[in-house]
Parts: sequence; structure tokens; C-alpha cells
Amino acid sequence: MAGSTFGDSFRVMTWGESHGKGIGVVVDGCPAGLPLSRTDIQALLDRRRPGQSRFTTQRDEADEVEIVSGIFEGRTTGTPISLEVRNTDQRSKDYSAIKDVYRPGHADMTFDAKYGFRDYRGGGRSSGRETIGRVAAGAIALKLLGSLGIRICAYTKSVGPITVDPERFDLKKMWENRLYMPDEQAAGEAGAYLEEAMARKDSVGGVAECMIFGLPAGVGEPVFDKLDACLAKAILSIGGVKAFEIGDGLQAAKAFGSGNNDPFRLDENGQVHKETNHAGGILGGISDGAPVIFRAAIKPTPSIASVQKTVTRDGREQELEIKGRHDPIIVPRAVVVVEAMAALTVADLLLRGMTSRMEWIHKIYGGPYEDRDGE
Amino acid sequence: MAGSTFGDSFRVMTWGESHGKGIGVVVDGCPAGLPLSRTDIQALLDRRRPGQSRFTTQRDEADEVEIVSGIFEGRTTGTPISLEVRNTDQRSKDYSAIKDVYRPGHADMTFDAKYGFRDYRGGGRSSGRETIGRVAAGAIALKLLGSLGIRICAYTKSVGPITVDPERFDLKKMWENRLYMPDEQAAGEAGAYLEEAMARKDSVGGVAECMIFGLPAGVGEPVFDKLDACLAKAILSIGGVKAFEIGDGLQAAKAFGSGNNDPFRLDENGQVHKETNHAGGILGGISDGAPVIFRAAIKPTPSIASVQKTVTRDGREQELEIKGRHDPIIVPRAVVVVEAMAALTVADLLLRGMTSRMEWIHKIYGGPYEDRDGE
Amino acid sequence: MAGSTFGDSFRVMTWGESHGKGIGVVVDGCPAGLPLSRTDIQALLDRRRPGQSRFTTQRDEADEVEIVSGIFEGRTTGTPISLEVRNTDQRSKDYSAIKDVYRPGHADMTFDAKYGFRDYRGGGRSSGRETIGRVAAGAIALKLLGSLGIRICAYTKSVGPITVDPERFDLKKMWENRLYMPDEQAAGEAGAYLEEAMARKDSVGGVAECMIFGLPAGVGEPVFDKLDACLAKAILSIGGVKAFEIGDGLQAAKAFGSGNNDPFRLDENGQVHKETNHAGGILGGISDGAPVIFRAAIKPTPSIASVQKTVTRDGREQELEIKGRHDPIIVPRAVVVVEAMAALTVADLLLRGMTSRMEWIHKIYGGPYEDRDGE
Amino acid sequence: MAGSTFGDSFRVMTWGESHGKGIGVVVDGCPAGLPLSRTDIQALLDRRRPGQSRFTTQRDEADEVEIVSGIFEGRTTGTPISLEVRNTDQRSKDYSAIKDVYRPGHADMTFDAKYGFRDYRGGGRSSGRETIGRVAAGAIALKLLGSLGIRICAYTKSVGPITVDPERFDLKKMWENRLYMPDEQAAGEAGAYLEEAMARKDSVGGVAECMIFGLPAGVGEPVFDKLDACLAKAILSIGGVKAFEIGDGLQAAKAFGSGNNDPFRLDENGQVHKETNHAGGILGGISDGAPVIFRAAIKPTPSIASVQKTVTRDGREQELEIKGRHDPIIVPRAVVVVEAMAALTVADLLLRGMTSRMEWIHKIYGGPYEDRDGE
Repeated sequence: MAGSTFGDSFRVMTWGESHGKGIGVVVDGCPAGLPLSRTDIQALLDRRRPGQSRFTTQRDEADEVEIVSGIFEGRTTGTPISLEVRNTDQRSKDYSAIKDVYRPGHADMTFDAKYGFRDYRGGGRSSGRETIGRVAAGAIALKLLGSLGIRICAYTKSVGPITVDPERFDLKKMWENRLYMPDEQAAGEAGAYLEEAMARKDSVGGVAECMIFGLPAGVGEPVFDKLDACLAKAILSIGGVKAFEIGDGLQAAKAFGSGNNDPFRLDENGQVHKETNHAGGILGGISDGAPVIFRAAIKPTPSIASVQKTVTRDGREQELEIKGRHDPIIVPRAVVVVEAMAALTVADLLLRGMTSRMEWIHKIYGGPYEDRDGE
Repeated sequence: MAGSTFGDSFRVMTWGESHGKGIGVVVDGCPAGLPLSRTDIQALLDRRRPGQSRFTTQRDEADEVEIVSGIFEGRTTGTPISLEVRNTDQRSKDYSAIKDVYRPGHADMTFDAKYGFRDYRGGGRSSGRETIGRVAAGAIALKLLGSLGIRICAYTKSVGPITVDPERFDLKKMWENRLYMPDEQAAGEAGAYLEEAMARKDSVGGVAECMIFGLPAGVGEPVFDKLDACLAKAILSIGGVKAFEIGDGLQAAKAFGSGNNDPFRLDENGQVHKETNHAGGILGGISDGAPVIFRAAIKPTPSIASVQKTVTRDGREQELEIKGRHDPIIVPRAVVVVEAMAALTVADLLLRGMTSRMEWIHKIYGGPYEDRDGE
Repeated sequence: MAGSTFGDSFRVMTWGESHGKGIGVVVDGCPAGLPLSRTDIQALLDRRRPGQSRFTTQRDEADEVEIVSGIFEGRTTGTPISLEVRNTDQRSKDYSAIKDVYRPGHADMTFDAKYGFRDYRGGGRSSGRETIGRVAAGAIALKLLGSLGIRICAYTKSVGPITVDPERFDLKKMWENRLYMPDEQAAGEAGAYLEEAMARKDSVGGVAECMIFGLPAGVGEPVFDKLDACLAKAILSIGGVKAFEIGDGLQAAKAFGSGNNDPFRLDENGQVHKETNHAGGILGGISDGAPVIFRAAIKPTPSIASVQKTVTRDGREQELEIKGRHDPIIVPRAVVVVEAMAALTVADLLLRGMTSRMEWIHKIYGGPYEDRDGE
Repeated sequence: MAGSTFGDSFRVMTWGESHGKGIGVVVDGCPAGLPLSRTDIQALLDRRRPGQSRFTTQRDEADEVEIVSGIFEGRTTGTPISLEVRNTDQRSKDYSAIKDVYRPGHADMTFDAKYGFRDYRGGGRSSGRETIGRVAAGAIALKLLGSLGIRICAYTKSVGPITVDPERFDLKKMWENRLYMPDEQAAGEAGAYLEEAMARKDSVGGVAECMIFGLPAGVGEPVFDKLDACLAKAILSIGGVKAFEIGDGLQAAKAFGSGNNDPFRLDENGQVHKETNHAGGILGGISDGAPVIFRAAIKPTPSIASVQKTVTRDGREQELEIKGRHDPIIVPRAVVVVEAMAALTVADLLLRGMTSRMEWIHKIYGGPYEDRDGE
């Protein structure tokens, strides 16, 4: 049973390979009546496009999305929305160098182990290019969430050892540097750090952080489909992610209960709120009304230009030197993917949560009516 | 759409509340012919049972499991296996103190937000007692995996700031202390640390680590149901878990590609293996044949005896003093739950993976036959 | 991947065998706040209970249901509802006569082919007793539907060649005969017909019909989870059902379009309605507001007392004489199962349909808010 | 939760509207290593293409399929296969005549009731053109089944009152007439019958029958996902189908048990077989090794040229005269859709069934190994 489907109520199925004809996604379950244009989707795709700075691969593709179904007169119809991006830079290269070689840190070996063979061109289905489908679908989810007053924002929190300083944290700044760091000074240092690594033919890891604002309390499905559990799966499903933290994350393991619990108070309107947010906006797997905050630790790009030891699929040891230009860090291009996956997760759980209470059922379908004579 | 179902091919549905009549689980999809006895399940349940040391709650229940269906003449029949544990210590207490109060760090407020009301007795469905169903089902998954030569082992890696020393690491030692720490000295220090916190009416967080041995390469379903993604969801769905790391986890974010990539080599039998295991046994979301290693960071027990600020469901601020004896740390009792969830995840993906290749289909059903005249 | 789960939003998992410890079901996804008592469920179960007339098996069990979880203070909590009925008449009989024999018309041979062996006691999981779980869960669905003003009623339409006369059709009459036929005269003739068959050690087939009143227009999920498609699956999943018809059913195949189309008109309130209902209340897989009407053709009871030719599992031909008393017809006891399966199907699709429109999302979660600055 | 997904292990998601840009499907879960070419798919699509005879609509489109992903070097890779057919004849017509009118027998009214509005061009998503995705995916399933020695064949069994004579039944003949009737004489009479109806501006219903040969015993998942239940859903999900019969179908309701039971015997090789096949190849929801035989009753084409009474979406009564040329009968073009849906159902259940037995698990993954020390 294959795994290219995500979500239940807001469900997406992605398809496509790095050097096939294209990449796409079908969204099944987007409610009818959402205003949606090609621009809504292209805008998000443009943020993950390669070739935009010296820190991203030079593959130069416009990644233009086409909406092939599901929209009529500017609104979603409730039927499947098919989106596709045709590959335009997949010129037939000479793949003989990597055809039979297992690149370290890549999925070459494991795809062979699972399927018996693989599309070796540019990583095939395991390429980062696969995330185009996620981002395209995520743009629809973000539009839906926006109409409910929910905003999602992801950014680069750290590049190697260089981290955004909480005192200098300014979300607007993330749009001013290609690393998407909301701290100008850290971005500068990180750039220099990356240049150095690139000069050594090496790559660097980092951390993306994501915030969800405006999510009402009550979203998430205990006991297995908790909001944090679903987010963790969504984020770990992105290539290269090695850790997921919600709220205080790892620090919670070193804390005391007295410091980690968030005290409840009433705000000026008499509404329940939490004085602190160590929990990251989720209690018992259900949103608590505070901002949801999580982080993803992402490994260094596995494609590096320096010589590596490896083996071939027919069992010979060999040295490998990966040609071409690769992103020296995954994080800046991954932030928009993190945002997309968070949006898909939250949209799905919001729709699923509509069946939580009889009073909501009655709001849609009428009733309750007296059930005088039982069954 | 509710969330008490886990898994697709090896699917479980859990039910039950802390102070209802009992807790249980139905396992739908366990293959026919697996030898299984009540003892297989009870043995695992006994490891999560309360009242076993000064570091666990005094609720004293035998938690005896009954197999109600699905087994015939000592083997699974392929039909649903229903397991249940009746609650015996749910004497009708006076809940008036917590009935209307939102305990900080608990799901009281969020359950109300989601469902409109809640079973407040002992946390109801959000109680840690819910994990009985997971452990009971996990015992079946472990039995299945054992017959394939796959072993899973979880233990306490750290208690607050006290961590197992890699040099003293000895798995056998974990059975000699009630904290399940595979390092005698660390266990001693951790015990003292806990005593101190308890004296201050406080609680402590920690980290559980889990290893999966013998898993063949090729397990996991790109692109969304990757092995690490599914494990992350499984582990984050356990109450109190705030972070998940696979392999080097957070450290990978600070590493260079040259150091983080695991070089492939041939072993003495000519088999591909990795010289290191920074990846934690997973590449591209598929097992690579090396041990799978992951960690869960778990917050301090939210139930603490010291006075806390909170509010009531009808909007009054109030101070709360939680009575009774509670575990000062969740981790030691959670390790068996981590093991169970890992087993459920791996069993499900192993079964799902059987359809990955035509040659495996033919192994079961015969063929391939020439398809002379096509469709 | 096993098949004991039904439904997505209103999801049930059934378990249990004829001669095991019991039969049960877990309902995951019933919205919170539905008033529900043990009596609601027992009342429906009593209608499928054996031993109530000369036309049903003499197995005499009270089939008392226990609600083990999911209800608090008389209402559903939104968490899983576990229901179970313990078997009380499963005394250890001598099964040596049928242990190795494949009873014609039964699933003995196919269970062996699928699972490699089977629980042969009383048919094990393939026994009609399995439907207890369906009926128990169906009672909850009926209660939910009742609160929305939706009623479901199934009855025996024909016994062998004897059919209810439309001119004498009177739903109230079905409660006055044990065959649940809404036509006194037909019931009398059918009784005589059955007596005759029983005297010949034979059994008889028949047809159940079901009506769903009050279902609003708009329920059903094109293109695969259409209301009629889901009903067909639900009904064919009941043991012994060999055909499903919606509306005019088979007759539609002989009709002309001019006669089969239902003309739309306005009623006195200016509401759209159909002058006729050949479609059976469903157009394009979605309810159209007219009553939903469908039929299930059910085969004769396969357990007959006369001598039959068969084989054993180890490959010997043998004659078989099935001992004991069996229902001479399945239909009258199946009607309540048909009702239950219809209720489970409709409840699930109603809940699923809540996400069809943005305006319904906004009714629950607020908005729409202007999305001024796009993504 | 939308319904454009079918299948679990062999899962398809279809998309597209009659007069949008195109129609397509993504197949997620086809095992790796199946030889597959564009021709395999186009050949099946050509059979459902319009404009091929005087009994089909004149919409003249080549319906050329493109394989956009999932195939490498002539074989499936195990990753999603995206197929699409671009619409070429969807010239912008004047839809003002039907834009606001509810066509009797169509889904116009119910789509409005469900989604609040609809794509009215040519029926949008509810058009028969939607089945292109089913047929394209079905071609892959048929190829997979063919490699296992399983064949599926559907044909027209009756047109209005004219039925294939069992004595003249000859499968080869179905390829010689455009009605796909395996009886030359019946085909001739049916043609005349259709001409007459067309002259009266009317349409005709009929019955499609389908046979599945070579299916091994043991396929189907009790208790809800029985083979016949899944087939029933698959077939009823095709637009216009009003009844489903397996084996003797409705006739079983009139039979006696002694006549309806299929006696088991041993064949010349000592294998169990059934002397008759009233059951239609399925016992207890599991294939029994005999050919699976089922029928679908299909209503007359709802689009007829004669004047009909109807209403508009804004509540006015109106007469409707549907322009243009429409198929006078659905059945001949539906047979290939029936075949496709049967193939998708059987492929899915075959893959799902691989996890039924521990011995099959061990065949793929090795073992069983002794489980010496507990779990």
C-alpha cells in the first residue's frame, strides 16, 4: 500500500519525478466555494523555485503551475483539483556516472531495496523536486485557512551553529534575505558560514521554525491523530528532516513540571488564555488557542562535491565525486514546504473536527428533533 | 472524523477511559497463523503497570488482559483480535475539586473546547491509562516482528539533566533499575534527582530512546508514509512527548554534509552496509538495514502537588492543589509504550510493503503469465 | 489489509465469533452530546435475537449488550464507544462432524483458502452472529439520524415467490407477524410456504426492502462514494445477500428514458420535488430529497437438513447431513441488519458531507475573513 | 470528506470535468516492475470512445492518453502513475439553455444541493466523461491481473427487453457488433429496437454482465470488504447503474436451499471444485475459485430529445428540450467501464489479501525465527 496520499478530509495525492515529464498533485476534498486563482498557487511555488540566489541550485525552471480541473468561475467546485508543473530542464544528461552508484545520504540504495530498481535520473521520485506537489496543494490549504483567519509562517531559525537571536527577531526581515532568516545580523553571519562551507565543497544543516496564528482551540483528534502527531508526520515526511519539536521541545525534557506547565488565566474579555506557551499551542493533542510553534531540524544537503566512499548496486566499492552545483543548505528552500505541510495538516484536521459535536451537526442539517418512539 | 484508529494493514482501534469500565483495543489485520497467548500480552502490560516503585503512581491494579476474540487453538485466525482490561480501582471518588477546573498541562480545557463537555473522572480518555490499549496491541505486533527476527528495545536515556553515559551503556542494566536506564550510575543519580523534585512537590522530564534491530532494508512508503514520518506520528501521539529525533536528530542541523553522510561499504559477505549510522537506519524514508534509532523528549508530569494558578470552565480564576500521589516522571512508564508504538508502526509498514514489487505478488499468487493478447 | 472496519467519519470496527467469548463493536467518530442509553441499543438487538418464532433458530440467548466506554452522564463523549455481547450458549459441542467438512453454501472452504485454517465452531467469524456488532452500532447511528429527523425502515418484501401486494401494503402490519411483512395476507401465505419447505428439510430465499425518510438532498460523495454505491456495499456485505436494487432497480433496464426520468416540479411551498421516484431518491449518487428506497435479494439459508454432497479439507468426498435446527429463511432476521447497515452508511455520509461547502465551514469556525495580502 | 479515491492498496484518484481542460487519474500503489506502455492504456480507452457508431454520441475526440509519471524504461516504478486525457472538443458552446435548468434524471439538482453551485458545462464532473479516468486506471489493473492469469470480460446482456440467448451465447461475437452483445441475432434485434426508440426521441436501458476468470480462491476481506460487496460498490458508482446481481442474483430470492447450494466435488486432479455456480464464484465474501459472474442493470440515458417538465434553480417551472445527439443507450459504452471497475476492485483485494497469512509474510521477509525470550 503506497504512501503518496496525505490527509483524510482534505486529501492530496502527489505524483512525479525529478526528470520525468512533470510533477503534480490532485486535491480531493477542498470544500466548494473557495475563491482560487492560478496566482494563489504560483506565488507560493515561486518561493521554492531554484536558481534564485547563490545558495540554491542553478537548475533554472519557471515551475509554472496549471490548474487542470476543479475550478469554475474562479471558485472551487468541491470536486478534485488537479495541478501540474511540467519539467522543462530535464534535458537528457549522461547519468552513467550515478546510474549504478549509491550516493551516500540519498535514497538510491533504499529505493532499490524496496522496489527492485529505480528511476535514477536526478533522484527520480526521491528528489526534492517532489515537494512541488506539496507546495501547490499547500497554497490551496493556506487560502482556505486564510478565509478562517488562520496564518502560517515558517522561516529559517538556524544555519549550522548560527541562530536567530530572540532579541533581534523580526518576521519582516525574513523577506529581506534569501535565507529567510528573521534577523538581519544572523543572516549575514550565516551567509559567510555557507560561503566557507561551499569553498570546502561541503554542505550545512539547519533548523526551520513555523508558527500558526489564529487557530481556534479544539482542533486535533485524540488519541492517534493528535495535532502535534499529525504535524510531526507531515514535517518528517519532508526529505532531510531529522527532528521535530513542538513548543519547548527537547528543552521540556530538562524542565520541572512547575516551570513547564502553562498557567491558565482570564484575559480582559474574560476568555481563558495561557500566561506562557511552553506547550506550543497544543494540550492533549488538541489546539489550545495559543499560537502553535514547532521546529524541524534538517540535515546538510547530502550531495556534496568532495570525494566520498561508496558502493555500486552490483557490489563494487567505488569513489564518488558528485558533479554540478547543489544547494549548500536545504533549509531556506524547505521553509515554504514546511509551511505547505503545516497548512495541509491543519486544514485536514479542521475539516475532520467538524463532526466532533452534535450541535455542529445540527447547525448544518437542522434539528435536534425529538425522537419520540425510539428505534 | 475521529482519531482512535492507527495503522492501515495492521490496524488497531483503542477505546476506554481512566475511570470508565475498562480499556481495550481491537486489532484488525493481524495475519492468520501467528502463535499467540494471553501471556504474550500480559507480560508487556505488566511493564507499564502502576504501583511498582516509589517513582510511579500508587493506583494499584493488576491490569489483567482478556483475549475476547480472534484466537483459535493458540493461533491468530486473521480475524479481529479484541483485547480488554477492566478497570478495578476506579472507585467513585469525589471529583468535585477538579470537575470544573482546568488543570495546567492537561487536556481538560481542550477537550471542552472540542467536544463541549468531557468525562472529568481521572482525565477520562486523555489519561495515561489510555496507553493500555496501545501496549496490548503492541505486544501482538512485537510477537509478529519477533517471528521475522526483528527486535525493538526502548529505555530511559535521560532524566532531567542526567543522561546515560555512552561508555557505561549496557542494555542489560536497564532491567535492574525501575527507571529502565541502561547505566547503573546514571540510574542512581537520577533516583536522587527525582527524590529531590518530589520533596519540592515538583516533577521532572526526560528522554526515551528506542532501537529497532533486524529490520530489513526497504521498509517505508514514500513520499508521505515514510518510516521516520510514521514513527514520528506514532511517538508524538503518546501523551507528553514534545520532540522526536531520528538518528543524529537535532545534531544533524549543526553538522556538515561530509560528516553527516554515512559512507557505504561492503561487509565481509559482500553485502552493502554503512560505516556509520548518523541517519538512524533510514534513508529517503525507507529502512536501510542499519539499526533504526530514535528518541522521544517527554515533558515533566503535569500533575504536581504544589499550588498552581488556573481557571474554571465557567470562567473564574482559582488556585489548584492536585491531591494524591502522581508519577514524578513519565519516562520510565512510557518506554514500554514507545516500544509498543514502534512495533505497531513497523508491523504496519512491513505488511504494507509486501505489495511493493510484482515479483512478490507472483511469489504469493503465481505467474507471471504471458499476456499475449493484451487488454 | 483486513476488512472489519466500516465507515470513515462514523467508523465502526466489529469483532467476535459465533462460538468464541462474545461479539462486539467499537464506534469511533460518533459526535459528542448524543443522548444514548443501553436501552437504545438493546431494543434493536432484541429484534435480531434468535429463538423468537418457529422460523428462527432455537439458539436461545438474551444477547445482552454492555456499553463499556464512550458514554458519560447519558451522552456520548465523542470518544470511542465500545459495545459487547457475551456469548452464553456456546457450550462446547462436538464439532467433529463439521470440523473438516466444507458445508455447501458456507464460507468454510473459502476461509481455509484465505487464512490457511479456520475457527470451525459454528462458522466462527462467518456466522450470522457476527451481525450483532453491526446492529449494536447501527442503533447508535439510528439514534443520531433520528435527532436529524431521518427515519429508516426495513421489512420483508417477499418470501420465495410470495410478495407483498402494493395495494395491501401497510407498514404497521409488519410488527404483527414474525416475518416482518407489511401485508397480513402475504405473511400468512409465506408462513405456510415456509412450513412446507421445512417439512421437506429445505430452506427459502426472499427479498428485504428498506426506506429512508427525511434524508435531506445533497448527501453522497461522487464519484466513488456515491450514496447508492455505499449502500450497495453495506448491504452486499451482509451474509447471503445476492442482489441490490435502488429505486426501480432491474426494471430500469427495461424502461424507456421518457418513463424512467422523474420530472421535477414545485410543491405548494415552491420547493423542488419530483413527481415520481423511479430513481429511488438518488441522482448522480447524491440524495435528491425523495425517500431512498432499495431492496436486497437474499439467498435461502445454506444450512439445510437434507443430505448434501461435499468434500473434506483433506480431499475426500463425503455426504453431509447438517444436524440441529436452523432458520428456514434468513430474511426476517436480516431486516434489522439491513436497517442497521443503512443507518451506518447514511450517518457516515452525512458527517462526511459537512465539509462540502465553505459556507458550512464558516458556520462552524467563523469567517470568511478578507485575505488581503494573499500568501 | 470527498469521494474521488477508490481502493486501498491499489488506489486511484480521478479528476476532471466534461468541459474543463481534461480528465485524468493518479494510480498510487501499483507494484514496481509491471511492464506497461501507453498502448496498454489507449487500447482500453478506445473502446469507450464516443463517435464510433450510430448508437453513440457524436462528440468526436481521440481521447489520447498521456502517461505523465511512474514509468521508467517500460516498467512501473512503484511510484504514482499519472495519466491524463486532454479534452479537445469542449468548444465554448452556449450553455444558457441548461445553465439554470435541472435536467430530469441528471445530477444538476443534487450537485447544487450539495455544493451550492456547479460547473454546468456538459454535466461537469457528473458527466459520463468522468469514466475516462476509471478506464485508464483499469487498464493498468487489467495488465497486472493478466500477469497473474486473471481475465475479465464484460458485455451487453440485454437491451431493453431483448436478452442474449444462453444457447447462442458466444463471447467472440461481442466484438462483431457495436453493442458488444455476444449473440449476433440478439444484437440485430436490439439494433432495431434502438432505432425505433431514437425515432421516438427516447432512450433505452439494459444490462451488462461481467465474468472474471482465473481468480484464485481466497480473495476478499470479511466482514465488510467482501469481494461481492466491493464489486457492488464499484459497479453502483458508475453513473446510471440501478442494480447489482452476483451469481443467480435476484433469482436466488426465489430458490430453495437445496437448489441454490453448489455441491463441492473433487475434480480429476483431486482439487475441490463446485458442480454448479449459483453463488457466482464467491462464498462468504471470498472468491471460491469458480468464475465470478455479476450483472449491472443500467437505466436509460436520461438525456432525451423529447420535451420534459422540469424546474430551474431559481424556482420556476419550465419545459426542457435537450438539444444535440446523445447515446440512446448507455450499456455498450459502459461495458468497458464495468470491466475497468471490476479490475480495480480485484487488483486492490488481491494486493490487500497478501497479508492474510503469516506464511506469506515469511515468504517475502524470511523466518519464522524462534522467539525465545518473550516479545
